[in-house]
Amino acid sequence: MSTVPRIVILGAGYGGVLTALRLQKELGYNEANVTLVNKHDYHYITTHLHMPAAGTDDPENARIHIAKLIDEFKIDFVKSTVVQIKPNEKKVILEDGTLSFDYLVIGLGGEAETFGIPGLQQYALNIRSINSVRLIREHIEYQFAKFKREPHRKDYLTFIVGGAGFTGIEFVGELADRIPKLCKQFDVDPKLVGIVNIEAAPTALPGFDPELVEYAMRVLTDKGVTFKIGTAIKECTPGGVQLATGETIKSTTIVWTGGIRGNRLVEQAGFEAMRGRVKVDPYLRTTQHENVYVVGDCSLVMNEQGKPYPPTAQLAMQQGIACARNLVATIRGEPLREFKYDHKGVVASLGKGEAIGIVYGKKMTGRKAAMMKKLIDLRYLFMIGGIPLVLRKGKF
Amino acid sequence: MSTVPRIVILGAGYGGVLTALRLQKELGYNEANVTLVNKHDYHYITTHLHMPAAGTDDPENARIHIAKLIDEFKIDFVKSTVVQIKPNEKKVILEDGTLSFDYLVIGLGGEAETFGIPGLQQYALNIRSINSVRLIREHIEYQFAKFKREPHRKDYLTFIVGGAGFTGIEFVGELADRIPKLCKQFDVDPKLVGIVNIEAAPTALPGFDPELVEYAMRVLTDKGVTFKIGTAIKECTPGGVQLATGETIKSTTIVWTGGIRGNRLVEQAGFEAMRGRVKVDPYLRTTQHENVYVVGDCSLVMNEQGKPYPPTAQLAMQQGIACARNLVATIRGEPLREFKYDHKGVVASLGKGEAIGIVYGKKMTGRKAAMMKKLIDLRYLFMIGGIPLVLRKGKF
Repeated sequence: MSTVPRIVILGAGYGGVLTALRLQKELGYNEANVTLVNKHDYHYITTHLHMPAAGTDDPENARIHIAKLIDEFKIDFVKSTVVQIKPNEKKVILEDGTLSFDYLVIGLGGEAETFGIPGLQQYALNIRSINSVRLIREHIEYQFAKFKREPHRKDYLTFIVGGAGFTGIEFVGELADRIPKLCKQFDVDPKLVGIVNIEAAPTALPGFDPELVEYAMRVLTDKGVTFKIGTAIKECTPGGVQLATGETIKSTTIVWTGGIRGNRLVEQAGFEAMRGRVKVDPYLRTTQHENVYVVGDCSLVMNEQGKPYPPTAQLAMQQGIACARNLVATIRGEPLREFKYDHKGVVASLGKGEAIGIVYGKKMTGRKAAMMKKLIDLRYLFMIGGIPLVLRKGKF
Repeated sequence: MSTVPRIVILGAGYGGVLTALRLQKELGYNEANVTLVNKHDYHYITTHLHMPAAGTDDPENARIHIAKLIDEFKIDFVKSTVVQIKPNEKKVILEDGTLSFDYLVIGLGGEAETFGIPGLQQYALNIRSINSVRLIREHIEYQFAKFKREPHRKDYLTFIVGGAGFTGIEFVGELADRIPKLCKQFDVDPKLVGIVNIEAAPTALPGFDPELVEYAMRVLTDKGVTFKIGTAIKECTPGGVQLATGETIKSTTIVWTGGIRGNRLVEQAGFEAMRGRVKVDPYLRTTQHENVYVVGDCSLVMNEQGKPYPPTAQLAMQQGIACARNLVATIRGEPLREFKYDHKGVVASLGKGEAIGIVYGKKMTGRKAAMMKKLIDLRYLFMIGGIPLVLRKGKF
């Protein structure tokens, strides 16, 4: 029997892919067998999904086939859906099989958090995957086509975006850019189209620099976005949304970006979790199982003030790198290193040529911020796929 | 008061546009005031609509802005919808006004004939206009996007086309060409997609050369189309169709091409009409009103055997030319000429590079027929817009 340890990585998102790539690089021949499991045979760049969702970019630019990322001589890839995680038995149940592991990395990503708002689960669309953003894009175009047959249905042309966090803000920026093109394509008067961004918190981009938030709202308002800030959605129906204020907005399109929770599978596996996010130890391991690591949206890492870091691509990537390093150290019997999140900053796109951001503590807006956003995207492509991937997927 | 006669043309389809263009060419300064009325500010090439409907061509290639076709110094254009025709009062009521006429040309086109099949009017899509084919294209793409979220819904990938006449056959040819591209775009297994063409008559393309019909069905079957010939649709529901055989086909897409009738406005105006088609005299005038001409799908012209010619673009165009000639003759007090339909032949496309046809009595198939189809299309563009239009809209 082989004594080579088996590492199974669940999910090829930011966390899983970075873990896999670093293991591929660091591990020597026969040091470990690594298997990456993912629902699709592609990785997608979640931070880019607001563009294909709005239809301002091709979904192909937001995904990378896993075969182009990993070296299948070094890492096995299994395209399957995880059904159950059994940490005590060191097994993962897949839709079509079972995998045993010595070490497990859970990077299964998040799900939309609907906070129990009735109807959101059923009627709202989510910016969560290639499939879901293709659906949003097709849904939006379909509303324009349907409007031309039923011109009394103004609700076809009202687009509600729930949540004005980073995803919501980036999506309305793209959608506002797309609307004039759709109006031209379908012969629709642009004055009939409305984008309404609804946020329950007392500000858009809660927790972000107020001056930049104001800039973002001004840019987006000028592009035709209507904000309803400090306004909770009470209920979502096939006909629109009802707000806590009593107001009803008729719309056949609700895109929900209002919250993210971890994956239900980690709760079902019995890990100590808050809304599907597992509280990990300083080495990114679950508190119950030293051989199970959690990275990305399913993990909960606290900052120095004891508050959880928001789940971002940046956090997931750094976790993937740290997780791989600790796995290698474990296998080699070397000491583990604590994970420290290094917050480099954040940039949010507001549509073509417009963005806001804080990078290494420096505020920026407009073209400069948009350029920085582009650089961050290219840097990511470079990190995971080197120059060839930058050339293939990076748009200049 | 002016004694210049007022000619009003309703509809800028094949018949109306040809009438207008010939009047523009023949009439001298101040011989008549001509007004063309159309719902849209563009003319569309109905025989081309099966392509944008399937998504194999841009709808822009199937329409021509009226301002590019007519000389607005010679002919007035009114973009409006006709609400009522009052032949006794020599008035036409528009959505937003009234027009008086001395001579009227009715070229309002046809509507889908559903033969009273329950549900068809509500749930089936029609290949009848730019707006309706954009809706079909968007609807089809939307079904693919929805399927990826609900992979148990095979009915999303079943496309039912009712009617295997020329429009039905041409549409399934294009759709069969498009399916592999849609499957690639949405990551769908092509084996899951079905196109079902249902025809109540005992043969596809009823009345057409049996050898060519057989050729067409073989080509289309090879492309993946399933035919149900001699099979009537009993009912259409949001979930699919029920056939007279008792069989039910689950599908969220029903495109109805099974029949055309004339416009309901001509019945409401009191003209002697069969299914909205007005029986015209040999000069294309209504039998009740010498000053009212009818061209295109709203007119009924009998062949030598006393059976009505099917409503085609070719017939409408020849009628438009004859109608303009008789209008000029009337105004000048010259004798009218009887309309004689000159059937040059017919070519039906079966998708890219494939077609069948009979031209001047000669049968043709395959690339040669497809080339002929292209030539006919280009000839039409040349007829209405000369070389500039051929260069702008003709695809080589």
